[in-house]
Amino acid sequence: MDLDNSTALLTDHYELTMVQAALRSGTAGRRAVFEVFARRLPEGRRYGVVAGTGRVLDAIERFRFGDAELEWLTGNGVVDAPTAEWLAGFRFSGDIWGYPEGECYFPESPIMVVEAPFAEAVLLETVVLSILNHDCAIASAASRMVNAAAGRPLIEMGARRTHEGAAVAAARAAYLAGFATTSDLEAGRRYGVPTAGTAAHAFTLLHDSERHAFRAQLASLGEGTTLLVDTYDVERAVRTAVELAGPSLGAVRIDSGDLGAVARRTRELLDSLGATDTRIVVTGDLDEYGIAALAAAPVDVYGVGTKLVTGSGAPTASLVYKLVARADSAEPDAPMRPVAKRSAGKPTRGGRKSALRRLDGHGVACAEVVSIGEPVLGPRERPLLVPLVRDGEVVGREPLTAARERHAAAVRELPPTALQLSAGDPAIPTEFVNAGPRP
Amino acid sequence: MDLDNSTALLTDHYELTMVQAALRSGTAGRRAVFEVFARRLPEGRRYGVVAGTGRVLDAIERFRFGDAELEWLTGNGVVDAPTAEWLAGFRFSGDIWGYPEGECYFPESPIMVVEAPFAEAVLLETVVLSILNHDCAIASAASRMVNAAAGRPLIEMGARRTHEGAAVAAARAAYLAGFATTSDLEAGRRYGVPTAGTAAHAFTLLHDSERHAFRAQLASLGEGTTLLVDTYDVERAVRTAVELAGPSLGAVRIDSGDLGAVARRTRELLDSLGATDTRIVVTGDLDEYGIAALAAAPVDVYGVGTKLVTGSGAPTASLVYKLVARADSAEPDAPMRPVAKRSAGKPTRGGRKSALRRLDGHGVACAEVVSIGEPVLGPRERPLLVPLVRDGEVVGREPLTAARERHAAAVRELPPTALQLSAGDPAIPTEFVNAGPRP
Repeated sequence: MDLDNSTALLTDHYELTMVQAALRSGTAGRRAVFEVFARRLPEGRRYGVVAGTGRVLDAIERFRFGDAELEWLTGNGVVDAPTAEWLAGFRFSGDIWGYPEGECYFPESPIMVVEAPFAEAVLLETVVLSILNHDCAIASAASRMVNAAAGRPLIEMGARRTHEGAAVAAARAAYLAGFATTSDLEAGRRYGVPTAGTAAHAFTLLHDSERHAFRAQLASLGEGTTLLVDTYDVERAVRTAVELAGPSLGAVRIDSGDLGAVARRTRELLDSLGATDTRIVVTGDLDEYGIAALAAAPVDVYGVGTKLVTGSGAPTASLVYKLVARADSAEPDAPMRPVAKRSAGKPTRGGRKSALRRLDGHGVACAEVVSIGEPVLGPRERPLLVPLVRDGEVVGREPLTAARERHAAAVRELPPTALQLSAGDPAIPTEFVNAGPRP
Repeated sequence: MDLDNSTALLTDHYELTMVQAALRSGTAGRRAVFEVFARRLPEGRRYGVVAGTGRVLDAIERFRFGDAELEWLTGNGVVDAPTAEWLAGFRFSGDIWGYPEGECYFPESPIMVVEAPFAEAVLLETVVLSILNHDCAIASAASRMVNAAAGRPLIEMGARRTHEGAAVAAARAAYLAGFATTSDLEAGRRYGVPTAGTAAHAFTLLHDSERHAFRAQLASLGEGTTLLVDTYDVERAVRTAVELAGPSLGAVRIDSGDLGAVARRTRELLDSLGATDTRIVVTGDLDEYGIAALAAAPVDVYGVGTKLVTGSGAPTASLVYKLVARADSAEPDAPMRPVAKRSAGKPTRGGRKSALRRLDGHGVACAEVVSIGEPVLGPRERPLLVPLVRDGEVVGREPLTAARERHAAAVRELPPTALQLSAGDPAIPTEFVNAGPRP
């Protein structure tokens, strides 16, 4: 098996040693339920966004121990020979449910539920959390930026500020949350995210003059291109741009200074030159607050980089993967028992959860209901968990655009407070109910 | 070419359209110098750590446009046919110098200098910055944690809190900065970072009792293992652990509660049970401040996760890649001209830089000297730039352990203020000199 394609070593050392010890003690085959949830949202956030589900499904399909992985594991004493043999035959055979991608989540929402023999389910912990913690963090920040932009398009351009692989996933998460395009070409190829670009200061500096640079860009990319106008003097650059491109110049980009003030002067100048349809793209360390502050400025497109790929202050979603129930023995029909740790400050709630969102009479979400056991759905309640994997087969794959549409709908359903950028409580409360044993 | 191995699309859209426009305007072949530097360190930090250089060299060697990449680029209208043809033949042919990996850096330190025809050098911008911005951010945070731990070993265990690929790079960066081990198996395989692990609460909960779980772990992993003792009641767990393992139990891990107080009680209990050599591992949202606060507690090993992989408040190093000089024409001998943008608040300094570190009479660093042109080295000055790539061939590859040793030495050379965790100015000032034209 190709090393680059296996995800099996994107795993913590202890997952494998726990499998080894459980194989030996006879507990590895006990049916187990693990749940992914966040104890709380990042400070002051109103909701979280489920993202990465599709990537988790891909990672699980590629979670195989090939010869190269097994040689390394045994050669380095991570696992013994019987464990290596078990790993060689490992295929995830269990069931996974989850909130569909793009859905919103709240504290304690069980956004993914994994049921499988213990050894199979525990092996997935690290890679499942890596993907969801990253992608949910980025999508949650992106969604706030989309709200702040109030309909104006956003370009994701943060690839250079984060790990090269994380950049691809961040572009995917941002698109899911409503960004229009990304600068990252691999995100375009791998996930079909539309890509876009402008030009860098280096391109202007390369040429003998700004005029020379603009002429070169227009000759190659056409008058619909975006010219970067702040390398030397914005006003002079805008005049040169319109002179060379004519009034149908696509856009100008401003990357420095007081973006609102410069955008206003630039708009006036463009209009006075007849370039009334030329758009203004602003970039430069924007976050959701910076975007909102430009609401009254004549900005057409926002480019967001650093703050998007770093989750705008919350670079991880702090999701955990906790055992909540397990069988008393490895027999197939052994009864399941809720389990919970009592660690100081970090207790867990035992028992497998279901979740639904309750709406009020106007169709506005009013509660996240997390129940132990299977609740009977009320008339204004919709279930949140959907099947993702059944008997080891992926059944929950969907196009990224479906998740993008779902996210837009999920945000529309939230109460208005969800759209506030100011720090506060989650937009809806999480209620716990004990629905009794599953039917 | 295997898609998974090419790094060529880990690139921003505009890098390729700039190449296209420059090819058409005849400027693509102009010799250019780009420099990587940070305008400032993250708020309050005393120094930065160069990390990722080895990964950059790997990425450059794999920066090739294969059929799959080219088909996608032309099929999606990113570049035209002549540009695709040029990309098909692309091999980086230029020269790269850099601060060796593990070295410390300061504001405006030119940690990497790329000289090549413009089109070749601009293509590398995104992936070079992605790698360095991530790895330097992690290593810079890790170095502070290592200082705070004052000789006690640190385990990196943050894989689950960050993107699965970033996790591997983070483990590498942490090891470079002085961490002892990582939980991430892929970092072990790919970079030779020693891996380590303990056990999770799920393992205890899987078994019929804590005693059952400890016995299973000891039977499989031996008495040198680390038992997790805070699932239910720490004191009871420690008693059970020593009862089952005997006094040569390797270690116990505490993951919750007031870590200092629990560590003290646990140490007393272990000692009273004769387990005087059993070590105490503490984990649980530790950062450099949390580590320092435990200096007086009987802690033997720190495990650090979230705060390490998120850069402890500074998840990106904010490095930029700026054109500082370029030839007047594409002729091989055309004279080079310093260039700089004047963008408001973001000006750059034109001209290719050299850098050296000046030491005082006691061998303590006292200044970072960045000069335009090639300075004459004084007796207590050491040059900071080393060759990494020459005529397209990697010449600067070295074992990760070399970078690790270099980092330890570089920190020892800094003035004591560098080790303060409190926010403040960079440990040494950056001085600019104009050394005149290069000889």
